[in-house]
Amino acid sequence: MLRSEGYTDGPNPDSSMHNPLYLEDLHVGQRFESAPHHIDSEQIVAFAKEFDPQPFHLSEEGARGTLFGSLAASGWHTAALTMRMLVESTPFADGLVGAQLELAWPKPTRPGMTLRVFSEITDIKPSRSKPNMAMVAMRNETRDQEGEAVQVFTVKMPVFKRPQT
Amino acid sequence: MLRSEGYTDGPNPDSSMHNPLYLEDLHVGQRFESAPHHIDSEQIVAFAKEFDPQPFHLSEEGARGTLFGSLAASGWHTAALTMRMLVESTPFADGLVGAQLELAWPKPTRPGMTLRVFSEITDIKPSRSKPNMAMVAMRNETRDQEGEAVQVFTVKMPVFKRPQT
Repeated sequence: MLRSEGYTDGPNPDSSMHNPLYLEDLHVGQRFESAPHHIDSEQIVAFAKEFDPQPFHLSEEGARGTLFGSLAASGWHTAALTMRMLVESTPFADGLVGAQLELAWPKPTRPGMTLRVFSEITDIKPSRSKPNMAMVAMRNETRDQEGEAVQVFTVKMPVFKRPQT
Repeated sequence: MLRSEGYTDGPNPDSSMHNPLYLEDLHVGQRFESAPHHIDSEQIVAFAKEFDPQPFHLSEEGARGTLFGSLAASGWHTAALTMRMLVESTPFADGLVGAQLELAWPKPTRPGMTLRVFSEITDIKPSRSKPNMAMVAMRNETRDQEGEAVQVFTVKMPVFKRPQT
């Protein structure tokens, strides 16, 4: 089970929508695990038709003889699905707003995979000008059901303290 | 006009689908300009509902009092639309397959903007192991109708020589 790898100190995906996270709730090394998303060829082709109409994303036939060999999701589809999972697994109170980010797709996302996002906070840098804010760096690995990464995504985001009441 | 900035040596978007590009057709400094894409709030909300359901991407009301102030597209939506434009404006014969990439969103994409992608080849590194291939680095700026960047995206992609016949 992937859950045995120690991704246990994030919020439970089922309850996370009710527990928005503020800066005080975060620490370096903190981990989050998302709920799963199952991807099929219908989703892959629908996304590709709208945003990335290249033969290897549109049909099995079109993928033959290409770098991919068989139908593969657009990397942007993997990225968008990852965002969808992150919105629930890392519910920062003021939202997830990426300022700067890096992406890699170590292997293709294929129909039939079950994806899940494993996130870890790698750095928290308090703002000099805004005492209620810090830049939080997070590394997000989107893994298939075998635990292999299809996407590695690092991002820096502004996160705010709980408002004084 | 944005076209006066010198983005003239890429293929004409209208004819590009018929002129796939091979490694021999590319050089450092080569530029490409995409056809325009007009984005409206309907597109923004539809994408957000599926992939990035955060209040500032879902409605004007939800965006009030947030970092964005008014409705803004998900950065992943800007990225996906950029890909859609690139597929036509930089028609590499064996496809656009990103190995490694960096993204930044200098300002939000808003309803009513007309986007266009301006691309430039910044490096071509021949492969040592595969004589018919090189890694091509490309910088892609997605700009609004005022010429201001909403996304800067740099990517390295494998590009192949024209097959011997």
